[in-house]
Amino acid sequence: MGRRARQAGRTLRSLPTARKAAALLAIARELRAREAEILAANARDVAAAQDAGLPAHMVDRLRLSAASLAAIAADVEAVAALPDPVGEQTEARRQPSGVEVSQRRVPLGVLGVIYESRPNVTVDVAALALMSGNAAILRGGKETVHSNAALEDAIRAALEGQGLPAGAVQVIRDPARERMLELLRLDEYVDAIIPRGGAGLHRFCVENATVPVIVGGIGVVHIYLDESFTRDPADVERAAAIVRNAKVQKPSACNALDTLLVDRAALDALPDVLRPLLADGVDLRADAESLGALRGAGLAAAPAADTDYGTEFLALVASVRVVSGLDEALDFIAEHGGHTDVILTRDAAQAERFVGDVDSAAVMVNASPRFNDGGQLGLGAEVAISTQKLHARGPMGLRELTTTKWVVRGEGQVRG
Amino acid sequence: MGRRARQAGRTLRSLPTARKAAALLAIARELRAREAEILAANARDVAAAQDAGLPAHMVDRLRLSAASLAAIAADVEAVAALPDPVGEQTEARRQPSGVEVSQRRVPLGVLGVIYESRPNVTVDVAALALMSGNAAILRGGKETVHSNAALEDAIRAALEGQGLPAGAVQVIRDPARERMLELLRLDEYVDAIIPRGGAGLHRFCVENATVPVIVGGIGVVHIYLDESFTRDPADVERAAAIVRNAKVQKPSACNALDTLLVDRAALDALPDVLRPLLADGVDLRADAESLGALRGAGLAAAPAADTDYGTEFLALVASVRVVSGLDEALDFIAEHGGHTDVILTRDAAQAERFVGDVDSAAVMVNASPRFNDGGQLGLGAEVAISTQKLHARGPMGLRELTTTKWVVRGEGQVRG
Repeated sequence: MGRRARQAGRTLRSLPTARKAAALLAIARELRAREAEILAANARDVAAAQDAGLPAHMVDRLRLSAASLAAIAADVEAVAALPDPVGEQTEARRQPSGVEVSQRRVPLGVLGVIYESRPNVTVDVAALALMSGNAAILRGGKETVHSNAALEDAIRAALEGQGLPAGAVQVIRDPARERMLELLRLDEYVDAIIPRGGAGLHRFCVENATVPVIVGGIGVVHIYLDESFTRDPADVERAAAIVRNAKVQKPSACNALDTLLVDRAALDALPDVLRPLLADGVDLRADAESLGALRGAGLAAAPAADTDYGTEFLALVASVRVVSGLDEALDFIAEHGGHTDVILTRDAAQAERFVGDVDSAAVMVNASPRFNDGGQLGLGAEVAISTQKLHARGPMGLRELTTTKWVVRGEGQVRG
Repeated sequence: MGRRARQAGRTLRSLPTARKAAALLAIARELRAREAEILAANARDVAAAQDAGLPAHMVDRLRLSAASLAAIAADVEAVAALPDPVGEQTEARRQPSGVEVSQRRVPLGVLGVIYESRPNVTVDVAALALMSGNAAILRGGKETVHSNAALEDAIRAALEGQGLPAGAVQVIRDPARERMLELLRLDEYVDAIIPRGGAGLHRFCVENATVPVIVGGIGVVHIYLDESFTRDPADVERAAAIVRNAKVQKPSACNALDTLLVDRAALDALPDVLRPLLADGVDLRADAESLGALRGAGLAAAPAADTDYGTEFLALVASVRVVSGLDEALDFIAEHGGHTDVILTRDAAQAERFVGDVDSAAVMVNASPRFNDGGQLGLGAEVAISTQKLHARGPMGLRELTTTKWVVRGEGQVRG
């Protein structure tokens, strides 16, 4: 599979944008044409999952419908319309030796993507890999073997219909863990491993891979509420809306709020900021000082344990803590941050200090941390969200699936 | 050490360029002021290496002199004058949600650099790390423990004199292999491992690290000589000069020539192209066809084995092979290439095909592969040469020691 992917990658890397887009449109057509076959395969996975006693929410995650399949096909068409980063070139500069040098953007080559139960990932990743000129080897969850096989058949038929190598997208159909381990160590043929799933999967990849891994995994999200954002009642309403959006819109997302840091001078506004969260059933865990303010206003909250800070909840739980202004907030975030951190302030100098000092994948002023997302940041689509610093940080779109090569043009120069 | 480095990194990442440059100038002064002390420490390493029976060329690699120490100090001053990539920001664009998004360049954080016997690396890497706003943990060879300790003392004194944290540059003084393994697995505190040394060191890091590794290591260098570059005798001379420069100027370098591919139609020119190499004592290993052409012209060459292709020689050895034109050359390089590949041609269309198809860190037209070097490509200085595709490809200068963060500015927006 590695050799086939490498060979296919050589064809893909030189394809003009129009041919890559045409291949994606062909995949979308093929998915629609094979609706019955794909849904039948998916039904087998769903039945097996139910027989195995998987919890209902996990069965839901692997279930496809005519509507969701149509949405998947539409997403593929959307990727076909994205700008192609391959071939972008920096301006050539002449060096003292006389040679002209520039850098050209090229595909990474072969991607290994390892993910869990959602079969839509198979198609999403295939589309993003192809559009960025990469071959892909995909390893989905064992609960979706039949769905992924049917989706691979559709993708392969579309590629062959377009005269493209079938090795461009390959699904590992054997669910044995040994096959995943082999993929992780296939550094002769695979240029990057992208895990999509929980922290355990990411850790497993980091511990076992010799191929470079782009890690997502754990990340804590903070909002710091400054006193200056609580003077105007309209701002208190904005703060409440942002905090609620951050925690409630999608609690399972990595960019959902974990810890609210509140300026001691803003403590009076805290009950109004957090009241809407309680209506949504959020479990608030507060330090002594904020707990007093909340209970004094008749709001239900529990005392926070030390482990409620620096923890990614991925659920309707949030911790609250009072800090004595921006400096303490920055120190706290330096200790616990890393994913998405927000300041709510009307003080421009404070906003600049926060943006400069906080070293997270995304730093925000007066906006919901939920904007840390490929679509919201303008990438068009994302293959994963990186929480590491090497190569890509934050959402990874088409450009993050590319690398560069140096191009040097001379007239016979040798190095002195 | 990890914790101290992380703390120091927080200070370094916000330093203005002028303060970083001042710190480097202070290091250069301190190196000069401590010349006697550093050379005495180095003499202990040299004596120990001689006692241990190290080969003379290895003892030479670890030896410092007043002149080489002065050159090291001058290199630090040169890094202080380089442009600072930290703080560069993409133009902010407004998204449909109303938030403004941009990306800002920031230091990686903490670098772990593992290298072998040359003590100048300790200073080079410290200077590049500091100038790019990073803290560094350095692990040099066990043969240079005393030299590195003296250099660390000098660096630390300079940093403290500038009011900067001593944890910014830390040298692991315990040569035990266990300490290196601990560094490789310190992913809580270290953002990237950069090995500098032979393929064995790189492989050891890849096999054992949980911190992301930027791999150098093996890379094969090809030159393809097209018939169009042999019509004019002046071009044949240019080809000979490039091939000689590529092989002889520094045979131990990763960008030195390994394999010359010669267009069958250019075979008559081959003896003139390779004659100068023989005067330099290069061991030529040729396939049957090129061997015939060389011996026919009275040149000494040996028959090539299969293992002489796709092999990095790092010595005065080169393999030669006849191909039936550009297509076969491209197929051969696709199979064996990856580092630096050169075409010598007068045909612009061929040059474009070569530049487009060859997927190497550097692709060159009519120039010596020795130009694949940080200084020659205009990076000013390099901390290492990456042969992987993730994050950085080719020479790594200050910019390659940085990452980005997203900056989002809103006016109270929440995600819909």
